[in-house]
Amino acid sequence: MASNKVLTLDSINPNVKTMEYAVRGPIVIRAVEIEKELAKGQQKPFKNVIKANIGDAQAMGQVPVTFIRQVIACVTMPKLLESPDFPDDVKDKARTILRGCGGGSVGAYSQSTGVDIIRKHVAEFIERRDGIPCDYENVLLSGGASEAIRNVLKLFITRDSSKKTGIMVPIPQYPLYSASIEEFNLGKVDYYLDESNKWALDLNELERSYQESKDAFDIKALVIINPGNPTGQVLPRDNIEGIIKFAQKHNLFIFADEVYQENVYAQGSKFFSFKKVLSEMGKPYSNMELASFYSCSKGYMGECGLRGGYVELLNWDPKVVVEFKKMISAKLCSTILGQAVMDCIVNHPKSGEPSYDLWIKEKTAILDSLKERAQLVTKAYNAINGVSVNEVQGAMYAFPRIELPQKVIDIAKSQGVEPDFFYVKELLEETGVCVVPGSGFGQKPGTWHFRTTILPQSDTFKDMIERFTRFHENFMKKYG
Amino acid sequence: MASNKVLTLDSINPNVKTMEYAVRGPIVIRAVEIEKELAKGQQKPFKNVIKANIGDAQAMGQVPVTFIRQVIACVTMPKLLESPDFPDDVKDKARTILRGCGGGSVGAYSQSTGVDIIRKHVAEFIERRDGIPCDYENVLLSGGASEAIRNVLKLFITRDSSKKTGIMVPIPQYPLYSASIEEFNLGKVDYYLDESNKWALDLNELERSYQESKDAFDIKALVIINPGNPTGQVLPRDNIEGIIKFAQKHNLFIFADEVYQENVYAQGSKFFSFKKVLSEMGKPYSNMELASFYSCSKGYMGECGLRGGYVELLNWDPKVVVEFKKMISAKLCSTILGQAVMDCIVNHPKSGEPSYDLWIKEKTAILDSLKERAQLVTKAYNAINGVSVNEVQGAMYAFPRIELPQKVIDIAKSQGVEPDFFYVKELLEETGVCVVPGSGFGQKPGTWHFRTTILPQSDTFKDMIERFTRFHENFMKKYG
Repeated sequence: MASNKVLTLDSINPNVKTMEYAVRGPIVIRAVEIEKELAKGQQKPFKNVIKANIGDAQAMGQVPVTFIRQVIACVTMPKLLESPDFPDDVKDKARTILRGCGGGSVGAYSQSTGVDIIRKHVAEFIERRDGIPCDYENVLLSGGASEAIRNVLKLFITRDSSKKTGIMVPIPQYPLYSASIEEFNLGKVDYYLDESNKWALDLNELERSYQESKDAFDIKALVIINPGNPTGQVLPRDNIEGIIKFAQKHNLFIFADEVYQENVYAQGSKFFSFKKVLSEMGKPYSNMELASFYSCSKGYMGECGLRGGYVELLNWDPKVVVEFKKMISAKLCSTILGQAVMDCIVNHPKSGEPSYDLWIKEKTAILDSLKERAQLVTKAYNAINGVSVNEVQGAMYAFPRIELPQKVIDIAKSQGVEPDFFYVKELLEETGVCVVPGSGFGQKPGTWHFRTTILPQSDTFKDMIERFTRFHENFMKKYG
Repeated sequence: MASNKVLTLDSINPNVKTMEYAVRGPIVIRAVEIEKELAKGQQKPFKNVIKANIGDAQAMGQVPVTFIRQVIACVTMPKLLESPDFPDDVKDKARTILRGCGGGSVGAYSQSTGVDIIRKHVAEFIERRDGIPCDYENVLLSGGASEAIRNVLKLFITRDSSKKTGIMVPIPQYPLYSASIEEFNLGKVDYYLDESNKWALDLNELERSYQESKDAFDIKALVIINPGNPTGQVLPRDNIEGIIKFAQKHNLFIFADEVYQENVYAQGSKFFSFKKVLSEMGKPYSNMELASFYSCSKGYMGECGLRGGYVELLNWDPKVVVEFKKMISAKLCSTILGQAVMDCIVNHPKSGEPSYDLWIKEKTAILDSLKERAQLVTKAYNAINGVSVNEVQGAMYAFPRIELPQKVIDIAKSQGVEPDFFYVKELLEETGVCVVPGSGFGQKPGTWHFRTTILPQSDTFKDMIERFTRFHENFMKKYG
């Protein structure tokens, strides 16, 4: 039937076939189907699906920050600037953004790098954060961090088929990296985070990974996710220094995925940007090539659907910057409203301004609640027999380890799936709880995990952990 | 200095280096610099830059459609649903969209394919337009059409280095195609539009192009831009039938770039979608693989900065659809507000609804004004000695031909640039008028052109054509 099609499984881009993106993989596709089945009135042992598969705060009930939405409404409909219902600082910001737009409208394209005034505000934010100068010409706005990460990764594509370019990524990792590396025909070089030590990043392991892969791959870059996704660790400053020394020694480009920089919960943990640390280390480290990513989707904002983000390019060859800017120009520009959200985040209300009190109240409430849920999740999973989880120091996820009986491993093998996929699939079908199997992020061979967000609000979380506990006990009885 | 960098001109993705995107190329970069120089008070023979380089209606003064902006404001700030200042149909639409969003918020991710209810509205729009059924599962929302076009093109990438996959594109073409084909290491197979016959698409030329390139390339797809960019022609139905027969004969996948479907001005011209025509032709044509693209950036909407678009997949192998959906999932989703704009366009106010009168008034005024400017542009350039242009039947551009003296050709050659680049650069430096050289779109060897939009409003256009005429006369005196 399909044999005369132009596009078939045999003819399409082979890397598209082999790429996997677990956060939206078969489990999540099945979860969406189950929701539709429930909506049609199909009987299930549960009434709703609880989606703990993706860091999507507002989908789980988090309320948007008022200031952000007021600004976006005003730039969308400038007539609202005449309304007495909007505070003056909202209006000022909206006017500033509109002045930066072509024709004074968010409906005009911006430069591919973004609206200049917003890029300048981002640069000022980075300067305040790090105490290190930032040139706004090195700041490029993007539709979420994912787009920027993929754009930078694309520069590493080669046409040399003899040896793939190696990109070092943590295991477990966020599957944007594995998916994009596969799509771009690059080589993924794994280094393992240390589960027995709170998912710490061990320098000896970095070196082991490099040495064992350097003949097979032309290793050029190192990806760091800090705070960690899915593992939640927050890197201490001395650890970052060690990582930078390692990267310098092997002349590696650093991808600093710092989208969770606002999400730090654990006592004693603090976020340090890679830019700050390598700049303060002095030469030769302060000359290293870096790309640092941020987003409006995480933090306290959780504006995933509005698609805002940026990348800062540090110490790049100016000629490469020119090529990079040319490359992104073919997609014209990222959404202006997403860019405007980034402006609200990097240049938020200051003490004394009309919107400040409400803004700080909302921000604090969200971050306090996330902190509470981080502790709750840790405690709840550790209380279950056969499940253990490290403290969630930061980000929005826990990555609990599950001990699976040999019988499960055998059945999964016979079905051609990973044992944690089998577990998570049964969890979904029997309880409606949707989490992502650890195999989608990578894990040490012979260990099994799943990733859950810490985002369900307290009632939902209580419901979820009850469903989970009951399921886990039954599962163990059935297969143990 | 830069020799120890990881990323250098020698090490980066070679296809990034070779790709070109003229619409945002060196001329436009220089135009932005000149604007900054003017802002700093530098003296020039002109007071402002007139940007006729890009189809960016609102940047050139087009006023946004009220209905669209009201809906976007309401979904952004649902509190506005309580305001008496918004019509009921705006509120109904906003509520419908919000119900389709995770957690009832545009800040949540959608599925990668887009918000279901919006996809359904798109499918209904396509059904009404064509009188042919449309399954919403084949409709995928995207951040502008560019993103969707690039995603479909990516499926044609191969790892077989012996023979590049050929994609047939019109010459002149919109450089998104040449840039993306180059970036993805595909092969561009040119077919020429017939300037002497109003940029018609000649079937013999398609066949010539195919036959001459079929040994060098594995030709798999045919790109049609209708209405044409930069050439403005609108394909008659019998011409479309001939193109479909040609594609069927050679088993080619069709890219139908139909983003200008609302922009048809010429007497007797009418838009027919490729889907409609091939469906009505019956088998075997009605089984052909097609991707049809639409966008909120053009038409009467001109909402470029809000980034909305869709692709409809027709007759694809279902297994390939699965792979395609998996591939786009790694970028999570396109902006929800851009998706919401698409909803406003495909499911606009109907007669009798509160917003209808204003909506139809605004829409008609914009399209009438574009039609008037299309005629004005045609007339104005044809009145200049040494410049000739075909009637602008549709879309937003004219592609005038310029006769250049041999002296100019020689100077350009000595500078390593195209003669029309040289011309357009002098035009910019001397008058502030920014258009794009024809060489960025492709043209018959030995002919020279530039692309200008028809978007400048009448005062600006008058100013622009005066500057242009004066420049052209001086240029010819200087080099003729």
